[in-house]
Amino acid sequence: MELESLRELYLHELKDVYSAEKQITKALPKMIKAASTPDLSSALKEHLAVTEQQIERLDRILAALDKTGRSNKKCKGMEGLLEEGEDLLKEEGAPEVLDAGIIAAAQKVEHYEIAAYGTLAAYARLLGESEAQGLLEQTLAEEKEADQKLSQLAESSINVEATATAGGRR
Amino acid sequence: MELESLRELYLHELKDVYSAEKQITKALPKMIKAASTPDLSSALKEHLAVTEQQIERLDRILAALDKTGRSNKKCKGMEGLLEEGEDLLKEEGAPEVLDAGIIAAAQKVEHYEIAAYGTLAAYARLLGESEAQGLLEQTLAEEKEADQKLSQLAESSINVEATATAGGRR
Repeated sequence: MELESLRELYLHELKDVYSAEKQITKALPKMIKAASTPDLSSALKEHLAVTEQQIERLDRILAALDKTGRSNKKCKGMEGLLEEGEDLLKEEGAPEVLDAGIIAAAQKVEHYEIAAYGTLAAYARLLGESEAQGLLEQTLAEEKEADQKLSQLAESSINVEATATAGGRR
Repeated sequence: MELESLRELYLHELKDVYSAEKQITKALPKMIKAASTPDLSSALKEHLAVTEQQIERLDRILAALDKTGRSNKKCKGMEGLLEEGEDLLKEEGAPEVLDAGIIAAAQKVEHYEIAAYGTLAAYARLLGESEAQGLLEQTLAEEKEADQKLSQLAESSINVEATATAGGRR
């Protein structure tokens, strides 16, 4: 790969986040299965549906550039984040505590995407790709919303329940 | 590892971010060396100094819990993010474009930390660890500031210069 122009970097980052999203669609069902709290499980299910739409948006953007997101190159950043999340799912523990851990892992994933889409929307703007910019900003707003929803879920109930488990107090 | 209480999860996440920060102190010098723009290089140098202080804060928090951050367990999330960044440093390309890529990679790292410290500060609050909470919130504010500084740097000059390279226009 040669990165002689911002357009080439833009394409590189588009393919990277495409791989990241595809990995997320495979990881989310495991997190949904592992979640004990119905609210968490439904928030993750909703995010899976949103992720599918975000991939469709990337398909549209890449198709307009005569490109495809399909490639052999896996996004290593997301791979590491999801491995970390999967390791947590293997741990033993109280259901409320594991749910709090799932939220923590999911928020790391959200923040990767917030960084990635923030960068991509800025590149699209500079490159005069206004339709793509609109689609990328729409996804960025969804990722921020998903992150906030997870924070609310953690702060309003799950973390509090996790604190109340036997070992939660000294 | 058993995660029977929020306190155990808190300790697990503290050790994880400790490993993440240690990895960052090893990766930042390579990014500083690769950066062409003096502003980017000095922003990254400044962040390296801030990271050292953040590790000291984690040392203090862990020492108060009779724990240490030193462990054989590497934070896999950060490992993946930094591998992705290092792969980019190996690419050929225009200096301004590679600088834009370094910023994109650094912002993914910042966002990992924003998620991690946001979670940790929330746990510390629930666990009544008020001194730790203050230290974690201080680091969180620094990470957000570093992320914004990188955005400004990208938007005000580097991305614009990258757009102006030969391949930047269709």
